[in-house]
Amino acid sequence: MAEVCSATSSSIRTTIMSPMNSWDEGHASRCFSTSSSPTIRARCAHQSESTLSSAAPSSSMASKSSRGEGSSMGAPTSRGISLYSLSSEGRIRIPDETQSLLRRWPRASSTSRLGTLRCRITFMARGRPERFTMTAEFPTPGLWLIGLGPGDLGHMTERAMSVARRCKKRYLEGYTALLPKDQEERLEELVGPWKRLMRPSVENPEDLLEEAREGSIALLVVGDPMQATTHIDLEARCAERGVGFEVVPGMSATSLAVSLSGLQSYRFGRQVTLPYAYGDCLVTSPLELIDANYVSGLHSIVLLDLDPTGMGIDPPQPMQPAEAVAMLERMVSRLVEEQGERESLAVPVGEWDGILLSDIGTVDQRVIAGHLGDLSEVQGGFIHTLILPAEMGVNEREAFERRVVG
Amino acid sequence: MAEVCSATSSSIRTTIMSPMNSWDEGHASRCFSTSSSPTIRARCAHQSESTLSSAAPSSSMASKSSRGEGSSMGAPTSRGISLYSLSSEGRIRIPDETQSLLRRWPRASSTSRLGTLRCRITFMARGRPERFTMTAEFPTPGLWLIGLGPGDLGHMTERAMSVARRCKKRYLEGYTALLPKDQEERLEELVGPWKRLMRPSVENPEDLLEEAREGSIALLVVGDPMQATTHIDLEARCAERGVGFEVVPGMSATSLAVSLSGLQSYRFGRQVTLPYAYGDCLVTSPLELIDANYVSGLHSIVLLDLDPTGMGIDPPQPMQPAEAVAMLERMVSRLVEEQGERESLAVPVGEWDGILLSDIGTVDQRVIAGHLGDLSEVQGGFIHTLILPAEMGVNEREAFERRVVG
Repeated sequence: MAEVCSATSSSIRTTIMSPMNSWDEGHASRCFSTSSSPTIRARCAHQSESTLSSAAPSSSMASKSSRGEGSSMGAPTSRGISLYSLSSEGRIRIPDETQSLLRRWPRASSTSRLGTLRCRITFMARGRPERFTMTAEFPTPGLWLIGLGPGDLGHMTERAMSVARRCKKRYLEGYTALLPKDQEERLEELVGPWKRLMRPSVENPEDLLEEAREGSIALLVVGDPMQATTHIDLEARCAERGVGFEVVPGMSATSLAVSLSGLQSYRFGRQVTLPYAYGDCLVTSPLELIDANYVSGLHSIVLLDLDPTGMGIDPPQPMQPAEAVAMLERMVSRLVEEQGERESLAVPVGEWDGILLSDIGTVDQRVIAGHLGDLSEVQGGFIHTLILPAEMGVNEREAFERRVVG
Repeated sequence: MAEVCSATSSSIRTTIMSPMNSWDEGHASRCFSTSSSPTIRARCAHQSESTLSSAAPSSSMASKSSRGEGSSMGAPTSRGISLYSLSSEGRIRIPDETQSLLRRWPRASSTSRLGTLRCRITFMARGRPERFTMTAEFPTPGLWLIGLGPGDLGHMTERAMSVARRCKKRYLEGYTALLPKDQEERLEELVGPWKRLMRPSVENPEDLLEEAREGSIALLVVGDPMQATTHIDLEARCAERGVGFEVVPGMSATSLAVSLSGLQSYRFGRQVTLPYAYGDCLVTSPLELIDANYVSGLHSIVLLDLDPTGMGIDPPQPMQPAEAVAMLERMVSRLVEEQGERESLAVPVGEWDGILLSDIGTVDQRVIAGHLGDLSEVQGGFIHTLILPAEMGVNEREAFERRVVG
């Protein structure tokens, strides 16, 4: 009766089941379903690649060390090293194969080498703000991944704004994360006209890459562009096809959430995404990750799913606090049913400490600490994130209390 | 003979032993020393608070769940919840104790309530860039923690730049992280005149807080301001004294390092700082954290120490790649000596895979993948970060290879 959904799709290249672009998580290791309808398969399928490589972190993996062997899963290992360095224009460059391993790139000799690059990640460093004005002078051809930062466009960096303005054409990547409506309306004013690009055009980016071969194409991404698997995949595709690939980083929503919590950043464990259940297809691996962090004394940042269909096509429907808490309760029941009681899960979910972060980085931002039972009653807000603290230090507990109303 | 240094200083409030401001780590659980000189005490002392609450994550802590009890270490738990919400000016406000728990703050009614706030974290949302011009109109009195982003000031957000310009006075926090010399020179041009503030003035901030009571004081912090324990402590002190506290977030160096690595962000475990050894005072806990991440299939971001004295007063001396690799080797020897062989540590350190990130976010940035033996030969660069990948997925291995020269 139970179907292990995650085994259905080793061919899927990328894993998108998560809300913000930094919220890309694959952990649906076991997805029990009472049905084997194609929809459920599809839902579970796109969770599977990183599932296979990253689920159940505490047991199955890596007990046989392959450290330094470097050939366990991927391409054959080279023993060399490479340099990404910046040109005089602040371009990070990967030298060609013939370069000396340890050579420091002279800053002045760079532009002539651009043709040899396999891919480039760019910060356009050293540029003064004045340099980045609205001008006809476009950046070099290629795909420019540009981070918008979370929520409010005031979080865009100077560089991101300038480069986006100067690209020939702009797309807003519209499915790994969302920009609030009013910010979307501001976007044109700040960076120029843009079009929306949904999942199919990003995951099968042939048209996009062809455009990028000819001119500078900006792919605007909410948060930081390289936090999502899909975008790392774009780096690979550009490298394969010899198309320029450049990144202008942005502030990540996850990092902002950690900051806002007042908890100590080095005490966070692995990040977790809480996916929608699809009918009876309820995964328990997110809870296992949370629990593993907890018993290790590490806080969990829990990203709530955006997309009940898992297809990345429809307008997102961010999971609400009540749904998230109910989901955790269902997972606890399921886990206890399957594996027996755990001391760390003995306290009812409604009494767990939590910090709810809603619409962070936007004008509607709220940060609320309390028990999950109380947090589940919070209404309003659009996109939510939960932080589940492990045992807190004195300063952390005080920060938590400052976010609580007595 | 061996002295457990970490027990010497429960009175130290904050832990700074780490390079970038997002690199605040306390893990020196056991610090063996053959001497008990005051210097060594001092060195170990400031590592200890978060050590006590966070070291040895995989064993001692939290096996007795205090989830939801909320009173294990800190202040008494309140069962209520609080709202940080934004005013019409984009100010996040904590309502006073009498507010209804679940009330959504009306955006228009905010300014009159500012007097009741215990602390405020501000994003100045909704502000158009044009609004933030150089003007005599100062932000409200209080301490404004403003993130500069890592390395290059092009990574400053619009908001950070505007708010910094408009503050009455600016200090550059100069010990949890560093701005490259040329960027320091640019800072005045971008935000106005500033002074440097070193550790003593930040950890005993009486003068700073008195100034902030009267006017808007910007504390400029490289990276994201709330990633360092010291800065969360400032939130507490401001709350105690009724001084305004506002944060304008910045891009964090850790988050950028994860992005640049091409590895998947959700597969990173707890972050680790590799401290300088002080004579024979060599901690092995960083290695234990790295190893715990590794056997759980999680990558480690390893932040290299900036400060051999641990005092935060002298100009920083960032640890170099060769020193870092040698330190890991010493730690492996020590750990094996104490606890016996481990399968996960059987491969020689020089053959571990690693990604070296040097001077990220600056014009000198380099990202180099390879074996640690090779990486340890890399010369040049100022501030370095290491990423030690666990077993990599196919896409991750490919990203790793793209950062290697064959």
